[in-house]
Amino acid sequence: MRLYDNPISGNCYKIRLFLSLLGKAYESIPIDSVHGETKEPHFLAISPRGLIPVLEDNDLRIADSMAILVYLARSHGPEWLPDSPAAMAGVMEWLAIAADELQHGAAQARRINKLGVPGNLIQAQMHAENGLALLDKRLANAEWLSGNRPTIADIACYPYVALAPEGGISLDPYPPICEWMARIRQLPGYIAMAGL
Amino acid sequence: MRLYDNPISGNCYKIRLFLSLLGKAYESIPIDSVHGETKEPHFLAISPRGLIPVLEDNDLRIADSMAILVYLARSHGPEWLPDSPAAMAGVMEWLAIAADELQHGAAQARRINKLGVPGNLIQAQMHAENGLALLDKRLANAEWLSGNRPTIADIACYPYVALAPEGGISLDPYPPICEWMARIRQLPGYIAMAGL
Repeated sequence: MRLYDNPISGNCYKIRLFLSLLGKAYESIPIDSVHGETKEPHFLAISPRGLIPVLEDNDLRIADSMAILVYLARSHGPEWLPDSPAAMAGVMEWLAIAADELQHGAAQARRINKLGVPGNLIQAQMHAENGLALLDKRLANAEWLSGNRPTIADIACYPYVALAPEGGISLDPYPPICEWMARIRQLPGYIAMAGL
Repeated sequence: MRLYDNPISGNCYKIRLFLSLLGKAYESIPIDSVHGETKEPHFLAISPRGLIPVLEDNDLRIADSMAILVYLARSHGPEWLPDSPAAMAGVMEWLAIAADELQHGAAQARRINKLGVPGNLIQAQMHAENGLALLDKRLANAEWLSGNRPTIADIACYPYVALAPEGGISLDPYPPICEWMARIRQLPGYIAMAGL
């Protein structure tokens, strides 16, 4: 497998982390997304959406971290994405929060605050806090976001929650989230990223 | 099944449309999301995220249109969400675009332009155009977004694409998208929504 990748991208880190938890080897192809390489013709020929991560597995090419997590779980770790309608939907609820409150809230606040991208920092931080409140409520009474073991819901949410302080958002008001992050860091095969 | 629902919500319409295509009966519970009922305590007790749609099926409660589409496909229409890792990931790529370029682009432009919600209309329209370009590229050479039959990828993308003109976005530059919308409208069990 080949991963179009960047070390400071939380979305790429989701895939690096999950591949490591699964014990799967891959080749990392660095893409300078910070300086616009994802919008250059040579990368748009690989992925017209112009975003990393992109995973290649033989002839297959998958763009978007959520789709890649689903692909890897179905291929190599079915216990990370349960099969029953209710349990799969339970994971999807958190993938949706990762794609909305965390991506457009916490990740966006980090882009503005740390990377200097223009945008409304207060609005992004408020959206992030909505997402953190949902995680906090769930994790006050549960070890993992969906079901009773780690799933791709946890992998999808973890990076931009853990990076929230880089967006000027404190995690101190959320002890259950901090305990959940500590559990993730103890998973066999866990790897960190810069900033965590 | 019971659906917490609003007639002008494109996200609720995704579920009404899919239930109709599946031929499943349900009870619609109207929620006045336009005037803030989703943020009132009685609704937050149902769904702390404060968003519609929410589906109840016996003791199960699912929030988020993407999660509900996955639940309904796995329960009642597996042909709408194929099982193999590659095919399921292919559907997920479009669910991600529905949740990003279409939700934060086309739907956001509609909220600003039609419903008077504050926000940056130009930025939302540009984000929507990015999503429309991706659909257009795919549909220039394919009848459906993923694989060779309709899936929940088409159901998730259709409403806010079809409603894009309410956000000040013309679909005239995208003939393949217009032909795809016509195919969707011919599916047995298709129902329209106000504005379409």
